[in-house]
Amino acid sequence: MAFDLNRHITTYPDFPKDGITFYDISPVLEDAAALKNCVATLTELARPYRPDLIAGIDARGFLFVTPVALSLGVGALMIRKKGKLPGKVIDHAYALEYGEASLAIQEDRQIEGKTIVLVDDLLATGGTIAAANHLITARGGKIAANIVLIELTGLKGRSQLMGEVHALQQYEF
Amino acid sequence: MAFDLNRHITTYPDFPKDGITFYDISPVLEDAAALKNCVATLTELARPYRPDLIAGIDARGFLFVTPVALSLGVGALMIRKKGKLPGKVIDHAYALEYGEASLAIQEDRQIEGKTIVLVDDLLATGGTIAAANHLITARGGKIAANIVLIELTGLKGRSQLMGEVHALQQYEF
Repeated sequence: MAFDLNRHITTYPDFPKDGITFYDISPVLEDAAALKNCVATLTELARPYRPDLIAGIDARGFLFVTPVALSLGVGALMIRKKGKLPGKVIDHAYALEYGEASLAIQEDRQIEGKTIVLVDDLLATGGTIAAANHLITARGGKIAANIVLIELTGLKGRSQLMGEVHALQQYEF
Repeated sequence: MAFDLNRHITTYPDFPKDGITFYDISPVLEDAAALKNCVATLTELARPYRPDLIAGIDARGFLFVTPVALSLGVGALMIRKKGKLPGKVIDHAYALEYGEASLAIQEDRQIEGKTIVLVDDLLATGGTIAAANHLITARGGKIAANIVLIELTGLKGRSQLMGEVHALQQYEF
Protein backbone atom coordinates (compact mmCIF):
# COMPACT_ATOMS: atom_id res chain seq x y z
CA MET A 1 0.00 0.00 0.00
CA ALA A 2 1.28 3.44 -0.88
CA PHE A 3 2.31 5.75 1.93
CA ASP A 4 -0.58 8.00 3.02
CA LEU A 5 1.12 11.35 3.58
CA ASN A 6 -2.19 13.17 4.08
CA ARG A 7 -2.69 11.47 7.43
CA HIS A 8 0.44 13.24 8.72
CA ILE A 9 -0.27 16.75 7.40
CA THR A 10 -1.82 19.36 9.69
CA THR A 11 -3.80 22.11 7.99
CA TYR A 12 -3.68 25.71 9.27
CA PRO A 13 -6.19 28.09 7.64
CA ASP A 14 -5.15 31.71 7.12
CA PHE A 15 -1.40 31.18 7.60
CA PRO A 16 0.87 32.91 6.82
CA LYS A 17 -1.99 35.27 5.85
CA ASP A 18 -5.74 35.40 5.30
CA GLY A 19 -7.06 33.19 2.54
CA ILE A 20 -3.99 30.93 2.43
CA THR A 21 -4.07 27.40 3.83
CA PHE A 22 -0.76 26.15 5.22
CA TYR A 23 -0.06 22.42 4.98
CA ASP A 24 2.36 21.63 7.77
CA ILE A 25 4.76 18.71 7.47
CA SER A 26 5.96 18.90 11.09
CA PRO A 27 3.94 15.77 12.08
CA VAL A 28 5.64 13.79 9.28
CA LEU A 29 9.03 14.65 10.74
CA GLU A 30 8.00 13.92 14.31
CA ASP A 31 6.77 10.38 13.55
CA ALA A 32 9.74 8.07 12.89
CA ALA A 33 7.73 5.66 10.72
CA ALA A 34 6.12 8.45 8.69
CA LEU A 35 9.50 10.12 8.12
CA LYS A 36 11.00 6.82 6.98
CA ASN A 37 8.10 6.08 4.63
CA CYS A 38 8.11 9.60 3.22
CA VAL A 39 11.84 9.54 2.43
CA ALA A 40 11.56 5.99 1.02
CA THR A 41 8.76 7.13 -1.31
CA LEU A 42 10.73 10.19 -2.47
CA THR A 43 13.75 7.96 -3.04
CA GLU A 44 11.86 5.43 -5.16
CA LEU A 45 10.39 8.25 -7.27
CA ALA A 46 13.90 9.69 -7.83
CA ARG A 47 15.74 6.41 -8.47
CA PRO A 48 14.56 5.71 -12.08
CA TYR A 49 16.14 8.98 -13.25
CA ARG A 50 19.57 7.75 -12.11
CA PRO A 51 20.47 11.21 -10.79
CA ASP A 52 24.08 12.27 -10.25
CA LEU A 53 22.99 14.83 -7.67
CA ILE A 54 19.91 15.72 -5.62
CA ALA A 55 19.13 19.46 -5.29
CA GLY A 56 17.19 20.99 -2.40
CA ILE A 57 15.86 24.48 -1.79
CA ASP A 58 16.43 26.52 1.40
CA ALA A 59 14.97 25.83 3.97
CA ARG A 60 12.43 22.97 4.12
CA GLY A 61 13.86 21.32 1.01
CA PHE A 62 17.03 20.77 3.06
CA LEU A 63 15.08 18.31 5.25
CA PHE A 64 14.69 15.92 2.31
CA VAL A 65 17.64 16.54 -0.02
CA THR A 66 20.22 14.80 2.16
CA PRO A 67 18.15 11.70 3.06
CA VAL A 68 17.29 11.09 -0.60
CA ALA A 69 20.91 11.71 -1.68
CA LEU A 70 22.16 9.28 0.99
CA SER A 71 19.60 6.64 0.01
CA LEU A 72 20.73 6.82 -3.62
CA GLY A 73 24.44 7.11 -2.81
CA VAL A 74 24.89 10.49 -4.54
CA GLY A 75 25.74 14.03 -3.45
CA ALA A 76 23.45 16.92 -2.52
CA LEU A 77 23.30 20.52 -3.72
CA MET A 78 22.05 23.53 -1.77
CA ILE A 79 19.99 26.15 -3.57
CA ARG A 80 19.84 29.10 -1.20
CA LYS A 81 18.37 32.52 -0.75
CA LYS A 82 20.69 35.11 -2.28
CA GLY A 83 23.37 36.35 0.12
CA LYS A 84 23.62 33.11 2.10
CA LEU A 85 26.24 31.28 0.01
CA PRO A 86 29.92 32.31 0.03
CA GLY A 87 32.13 32.69 -3.02
CA LYS A 88 31.04 33.31 -6.59
CA VAL A 89 27.37 32.55 -7.15
CA ILE A 90 24.82 32.91 -9.88
CA ASP A 91 21.39 34.08 -8.84
CA HIS A 92 17.96 34.24 -10.37
CA ALA A 93 15.15 36.56 -9.29
CA TYR A 94 11.53 35.47 -9.36
CA ALA A 95 8.23 37.15 -8.62
CA LEU A 96 6.41 36.76 -5.34
CA GLU A 97 2.84 37.93 -4.82
CA TYR A 98 4.34 41.20 -3.57
CA GLY A 99 7.85 42.06 -4.72
CA GLU A 100 10.46 39.47 -5.64
CA ALA A 101 13.00 37.05 -4.20
CA SER A 102 16.28 35.57 -5.47
CA LEU A 103 17.79 32.11 -5.27
CA ALA A 104 21.47 31.34 -5.81
CA ILE A 105 23.90 28.47 -6.34
CA GLN A 106 27.69 28.48 -6.12
CA GLU A 107 29.79 28.50 -9.26
CA ASP A 108 32.21 26.10 -7.56
CA ARG A 109 29.71 23.26 -7.54
CA GLN A 110 30.14 20.53 -10.17
CA ILE A 111 26.86 20.65 -12.08
CA GLU A 112 27.75 20.67 -15.76
CA GLY A 113 26.55 17.56 -17.60
CA LYS A 114 24.94 16.16 -14.45
CA THR A 115 21.46 14.69 -14.20
CA ILE A 116 19.70 16.31 -11.27
CA VAL A 117 16.52 15.56 -9.35
CA LEU A 118 15.17 18.40 -7.24
CA VAL A 119 13.23 17.67 -4.05
CA ASP A 120 11.15 20.18 -2.14
CA ASP A 121 8.30 20.14 0.33
CA LEU A 122 5.74 22.20 -1.59
CA LEU A 123 4.82 23.02 -5.20
CA ALA A 124 2.45 26.00 -5.11
CA THR A 125 2.68 28.68 -7.85
CA GLY A 126 5.95 27.09 -8.96
CA GLY A 127 7.99 30.31 -8.91
CA THR A 128 10.61 29.09 -6.44
CA ILE A 129 11.18 25.68 -8.03
CA ALA A 130 11.17 27.21 -11.54
CA ALA A 131 13.94 29.61 -10.41
CA ALA A 132 15.91 26.64 -9.06
CA ASN A 133 15.42 24.80 -12.38
CA HIS A 134 16.70 27.87 -14.22
CA LEU A 135 19.85 28.11 -12.08
CA ILE A 136 20.74 24.46 -12.58
CA THR A 137 20.26 24.52 -16.34
CA ALA A 138 22.16 27.83 -16.56
CA ARG A 139 25.15 25.94 -15.10
CA GLY A 140 24.80 23.07 -17.58
CA GLY A 141 22.88 20.63 -15.40
CA LYS A 142 19.86 18.69 -16.59
CA ILE A 143 16.69 18.70 -14.47
CA ALA A 144 15.30 15.17 -14.79
CA ALA A 145 12.48 15.61 -12.27
CA ASN A 146 11.07 17.72 -9.48
CA ILE A 147 9.64 15.67 -6.61
CA VAL A 148 7.59 17.35 -3.91
CA LEU A 149 5.71 16.19 -0.85
CA ILE A 150 2.71 18.44 -1.53
CA GLU A 151 1.34 19.96 -4.75
CA LEU A 152 -1.41 22.57 -4.81
CA THR A 153 -2.84 21.63 -8.21
CA GLY A 154 -5.17 24.63 -8.50
CA LEU A 155 -2.18 26.98 -8.74
CA LYS A 156 -0.87 25.17 -11.84
CA GLY A 157 2.79 25.53 -10.79
CA ARG A 158 3.62 22.24 -12.51
CA SER A 159 3.36 23.90 -15.93
CA GLN A 160 6.32 26.18 -15.13
CA LEU A 161 8.80 23.42 -14.31
CA MET A 162 11.43 21.61 -16.36
CA GLY A 163 11.58 17.81 -16.38
CA GLU A 164 8.94 15.58 -14.87
CA VAL A 165 6.97 16.36 -11.73
CA HIS A 166 5.86 14.00 -8.95
CA ALA A 167 3.91 14.81 -5.80
CA LEU A 168 3.27 12.52 -2.83
CA GLN A 169 0.06 14.37 -1.99
CA GLN A 170 -2.14 16.77 -3.95
CA TYR A 171 -4.60 19.40 -2.74
CA GLU A 172 -6.46 21.87 -4.94
CA PHE A 173 -5.52 24.98 -2.94
CA MET B 1 40.36 6.02 10.94
CA ALA B 2 38.06 8.88 11.91
CA PHE B 3 36.40 10.84 9.15
CA ASP B 4 38.48 13.90 8.16
CA LEU B 5 35.84 16.61 7.71
CA ASN B 6 38.44 19.35 7.29
CA ARG B 7 39.42 18.00 3.89
CA HIS B 8 35.90 18.81 2.64
CA ILE B 9 35.54 22.31 4.07
CA THR B 10 36.21 25.34 1.90
CA THR B 11 37.28 28.52 3.69
CA TYR B 12 36.08 31.95 2.55
CA PRO B 13 37.77 34.92 4.29
CA ASP B 14 35.69 38.04 4.91
CA PHE B 15 32.28 36.42 4.39
CA PRO B 16 29.59 37.38 5.21
CA LYS B 17 31.60 40.44 6.30
CA ASP B 18 35.14 41.67 6.89
CA GLY B 19 37.09 39.85 9.57
CA ILE B 20 34.83 36.77 9.58
CA THR B 21 35.97 33.48 8.05
CA PHE B 22 33.19 31.35 6.59
CA TYR B 23 33.64 27.57 6.69
CA ASP B 24 31.57 26.19 3.85
CA ILE B 25 30.14 22.67 4.04
CA SER B 26 28.92 22.61 0.42
CA PRO B 27 31.78 20.27 -0.65
CA VAL B 28 30.77 17.78 2.06
CA LEU B 29 27.27 17.63 0.61
CA GLU B 30 28.46 17.36 -2.98
CA ASP B 31 30.69 14.33 -2.34
CA ALA B 32 28.55 11.22 -1.76
CA ALA B 33 31.21 9.45 0.34
CA ALA B 34 31.91 12.53 2.47
CA LEU B 35 28.19 13.08 3.08
CA LYS B 36 27.76 9.46 4.09
CA ASN B 37 30.77 9.54 6.44
CA CYS B 38 29.70 12.84 7.96
CA VAL B 39 26.16 11.63 8.73
CA ALA B 40 27.50 8.29 10.02
CA THR B 41 29.83 10.13 12.40
CA LEU B 42 27.05 12.42 13.65
CA THR B 43 24.83 9.37 14.13
CA GLU B 44 27.42 7.45 16.18
CA LEU B 45 27.97 10.50 18.38
CA ALA B 46 24.20 10.81 18.97
CA ARG B 47 23.43 7.11 19.50
CA PRO B 48 24.79 6.67 23.09
CA TYR B 49 22.32 9.28 24.36
CA ARG B 50 19.41 7.10 23.16
CA PRO B 51 17.50 10.19 21.98
CA ASP B 52 13.75 10.13 21.45
CA LEU B 53 13.99 12.98 18.96
CA ILE B 54 16.65 14.83 16.94
CA ALA B 55 16.28 18.64 16.74
CA GLY B 56 17.66 20.77 13.92
CA ILE B 57 17.87 24.53 13.45
CA ASP B 58 16.70 26.42 10.34
CA ALA B 59 18.29 26.29 7.74
CA ARG B 60 21.56 24.33 7.50
CA GLY B 61 20.72 22.21 10.53
CA PHE B 62 17.84 20.81 8.46
CA LEU B 63 20.44 19.11 6.20
CA PHE B 64 21.53 16.85 9.07
CA VAL B 65 18.54 16.48 11.39
CA THR B 66 16.58 14.11 9.14
CA PRO B 67 19.49 11.82 8.14
CA VAL B 68 20.51 11.37 11.78
CA ALA B 69 16.88 10.83 12.87
CA LEU B 70 16.40 8.24 10.11
CA SER B 71 19.64 6.46 11.01
CA LEU B 72 18.53 6.17 14.63
CA GLY B 73 14.90 5.36 13.83
CA VAL B 74 13.47 8.37 15.66
CA GLY B 75 11.59 11.54 14.69
CA ALA B 76 12.91 15.01 13.87
CA LEU B 77 11.97 18.45 15.20
CA MET B 78 12.25 21.76 13.36
CA ILE B 79 13.44 24.82 15.27
CA ARG B 80 12.68 27.76 12.99
CA LYS B 81 13.06 31.48 12.70
CA LYS B 82 10.08 33.18 14.30
CA GLY B 83 7.13 33.66 11.92
CA LYS B 84 7.86 30.57 9.84
CA LEU B 85 5.93 27.96 11.83
CA PRO B 86 2.10 27.83 11.84
CA GLY B 87 -0.10 27.42 14.90
CA LYS B 88 0.77 28.22 18.49
CA VAL B 89 4.50 28.57 19.04
CA ILE B 90 6.84 29.59 21.79
CA ASP B 91 9.76 31.77 20.82
CA HIS B 92 13.01 32.90 22.37
CA ALA B 93 14.97 35.99 21.40
CA TYR B 94 18.76 36.04 21.44
CA ALA B 95 21.41 38.65 20.79
CA LEU B 96 23.23 38.96 17.50
CA GLU B 97 26.27 41.18 17.04
CA TYR B 98 23.85 43.89 15.91
CA GLY B 99 20.26 43.59 17.10
CA GLU B 100 18.55 40.31 17.88
CA ALA B 101 16.84 37.29 16.34
CA SER B 102 14.17 34.85 17.52
CA LEU B 103 13.76 31.11 17.19
CA ALA B 104 10.49 29.24 17.68
CA ILE B 105 9.03 25.76 18.09
CA GLN B 106 5.42 24.64 17.85
CA GLU B 107 3.43 23.93 20.99
CA ASP B 108 1.82 20.97 19.18
CA ARG B 109 5.07 18.99 19.07
CA GLN B 110 5.48 16.19 21.62
CA ILE B 111 8.58 17.21 23.55
CA GLU B 112 7.74 16.85 27.23
CA GLY B 113 9.84 14.19 28.95
CA LYS B 114 11.78 13.44 25.77
CA THR B 115 15.54 13.09 25.49
CA ILE B 116 16.71 15.26 22.62
CA VAL B 117 19.96 15.56 20.69
CA LEU B 118 20.39 18.76 18.70
CA VAL B 119 22.44 18.76 15.48
CA ASP B 120 23.67 21.84 13.66
CA ASP B 121 26.39 22.74 11.21
CA LEU B 122 28.22 25.39 13.24
CA LEU B 123 28.85 26.34 16.86
CA ALA B 124 30.24 29.89 16.90
CA THR B 125 29.22 32.27 19.72
CA GLY B 126 26.58 29.73 20.75
CA GLY B 127 23.67 32.20 20.79
CA THR B 128 21.53 30.34 18.29
CA ILE B 129 22.02 26.86 19.76
CA ALA B 130 21.58 28.20 23.31
CA ALA B 131 18.22 29.70 22.26
CA ALA B 132 17.22 26.32 20.79
CA ASN B 133 18.26 24.61 24.04
CA HIS B 134 16.13 27.08 25.99
CA LEU B 135 13.04 26.43 23.83
CA ILE B 136 13.29 22.67 24.22
CA THR B 137 13.76 22.74 27.98
CA ALA B 138 10.93 25.32 28.29
CA ARG B 139 8.65 22.65 26.74
CA GLY B 140 9.86 19.96 29.14
CA GLY B 141 12.41 18.29 26.88
CA LYS B 142 15.89 17.30 28.02
CA ILE B 143 18.89 18.33 25.91
CA ALA B 144 21.27 15.39 26.14
CA ALA B 145 23.81 16.72 23.65
CA ASN B 146 24.51 19.25 20.92
CA ILE B 147 26.46 17.83 17.98
CA VAL B 148 27.92 20.15 15.36
CA LEU B 149 30.04 19.71 12.26
CA ILE B 150 32.23 22.72 13.05
CA GLU B 151 33.10 24.47 16.32
CA LEU B 152 34.95 27.79 16.50
CA THR B 153 36.61 27.19 19.85
CA GLY B 154 37.93 30.75 20.26
CA LEU B 155 34.38 32.08 20.58
CA LYS B 156 33.67 29.86 23.60
CA GLY B 157 30.07 29.13 22.55
CA ARG B 158 30.28 25.70 24.16
CA SER B 159 30.04 27.24 27.64
CA GLN B 160 26.52 28.55 26.89
CA LEU B 161 24.99 25.20 25.97
CA MET B 162 23.05 22.62 27.96
CA GLY B 163 24.04 18.95 27.84
CA GLU B 164 27.23 17.66 26.26
CA VAL B 165 28.85 19.11 23.15
CA HIS B 166 30.60 17.30 20.30
CA ALA B 167 32.19 18.75 17.18
CA LEU B 168 33.48 16.87 14.14
CA GLN B 169 35.99 19.62 13.38
CA GLN B 170 37.37 22.51 15.44
CA TYR B 171 38.94 25.79 14.34
CA GLU B 172 39.97 28.62 16.64
CA PHE B 173 38.10 31.37 14.71
